Amino acid sequence: MGIKYSQTHKVAFYESDTRGKMKISDILAVALQISGEQSYTLDRSDTWICDNFNLFWAVIEHEVQIHRLPDFNDQITIETEATSYNKFFCYRDFIFKNTAGEILVKISSTWVLMNKDTRKVERVIDEIVAPYEAPKVSKIVRPHKYLTLSEQAQCNLAFPIRFSDLDMNGHVNNAKYFDWAVDQLDYDFRMTYEPKKIYIRYNHELLYGNHEFIHPVFEFQGDTTCHIIRKDGVDNANIEIEWSKISEENEQK
Amino acid sequence: MGIKYSQTHKVAFYESDTRGKMKISDILAVALQISGEQSYTLDRSDTWICDNFNLFWAVIEHEVQIHRLPDFNDQITIETEATSYNKFFCYRDFIFKNTAGEILVKISSTWVLMNKDTRKVERVIDEIVAPYEAPKVSKIVRPHKYLTLSEQAQCNLAFPIRFSDLDMNGHVNNAKYFDWAVDQLDYDFRMTYEPKKIYIRYNHELLYGNHEFIHPVFEFQGDTTCHIIRKDGVDNANIEIEWSKISEENEQK
Repeated sequence: MGIKYSQTHKVAFYESDTRGKMKISDILAVALQISGEQSYTLDRSDTWICDNFNLFWAVIEHEVQIHRLPDFNDQITIETEATSYNKFFCYRDFIFKNTAGEILVKISSTWVLMNKDTRKVERVIDEIVAPYEAPKVSKIVRPHKYLTLSEQAQCNLAFPIRFSDLDMNGHVNNAKYFDWAVDQLDYDFRMTYEPKKIYIRYNHELLYGNHEFIHPVFEFQGDTTCHIIRKDGVDNANIEIEWSKISEENEQK
Repeated sequence: MGIKYSQTHKVAFYESDTRGKMKISDILAVALQISGEQSYTLDRSDTWICDNFNLFWAVIEHEVQIHRLPDFNDQITIETEATSYNKFFCYRDFIFKNTAGEILVKISSTWVLMNKDTRKVERVIDEIVAPYEAPKVSKIVRPHKYLTLSEQAQCNLAFPIRFSDLDMNGHVNNAKYFDWAVDQLDYDFRMTYEPKKIYIRYNHELLYGNHEFIHPVFEFQGDTTCHIIRKDGVDNANIEIEWSKISEENEQK
């Protein structure tokens, strides 16, 4: 395991949904921010990687386990560490805890280094990852096997790619995909069910396109919703969410 | 003038646009968060106001003066104070500064107290505002007079009201309106022009509506874009933005 890094974070009003729970897209965004800050403290900032190697970090997979969603105004601690890496993939965990040390959310993520010009994945360079002190392993973590969508999969809302969706890597920020997927589900469902487990796989990056629309299709398979973020027949991301009914006890907290 | 309150903030990756500048919508969201934190320190939290008076704070107008947009990773200080109030309106300023004390952004905002059930504006209650120590005045600040849109005003992109647009007040978060407006403008314009002055007036709150679309119309009037956030023929918000061309010098900073 690598060097641990942690930061505290207070859940802001604008990070809270209408139920007062921290939004998943903000959980993902804040996690990535914390890993960027660890990189900065280890002299491996995004700017350094770009200037020296013309590369940038991209997440290709997230597995998110939700024990309890942080609430508005909660003071939480986010701990992260690079756990291992191999020829192409780097693995990193994030653990969100409350002030009592209780684990609220755990994210296991897979990262690659992408070339800024070719937009292709490159081999992991030891000089970039050495300071994190994660072990180099030959093993490749088996990616999650996503359920197949049937012909019944539907798209309720198509979304344009907006300027405000883009980040400094010049593509749609990876936290945006989750909202494209769950915003297909209706209000009553979102008010009565909460995600317990989420898998997200980013297959292809999305660039700005004038008036081009994303068609996120989805369907229920038992307690799970299966989503594909689709554009022009290409599956840019797969998202799978296991839901559980919100208990009154949880709601009163 | 009232009691000053300030907090530092580091501009996060997810708050930065593709040019590495802090997004206006995040500037607005962070400002409101800071005022919420001042209220908390003065025992006038949103929860307290709701529990005791069944009211909540809503911004009805922002005037934003941008001297220089904060950059990704900048450490900034946001200072706020309630400046005055009258029968219906409370006035509050926000000043964003860099570490050298230079003013980057100034926001002058007008607030009202709304009833949680009737969704109507109520009179300001002295017990709520007294701790901020802002003077009670009879004067009402004259609101900005928005330019009139011609028949040529157009809507490039209609947007659904998404679950992820809602906040704990049960309506679309006010930081969302700005992106609905500016995302009408094309990529090249956004990469070559920056807002210098912004006026936003929130006329009517927007609630969640199944598959209902917002039609933000806009047009250029000289260096200014005039926007109306329109739904079902109702003008929910007016936004006016004065733009200036990004200089190379500014871009290299």
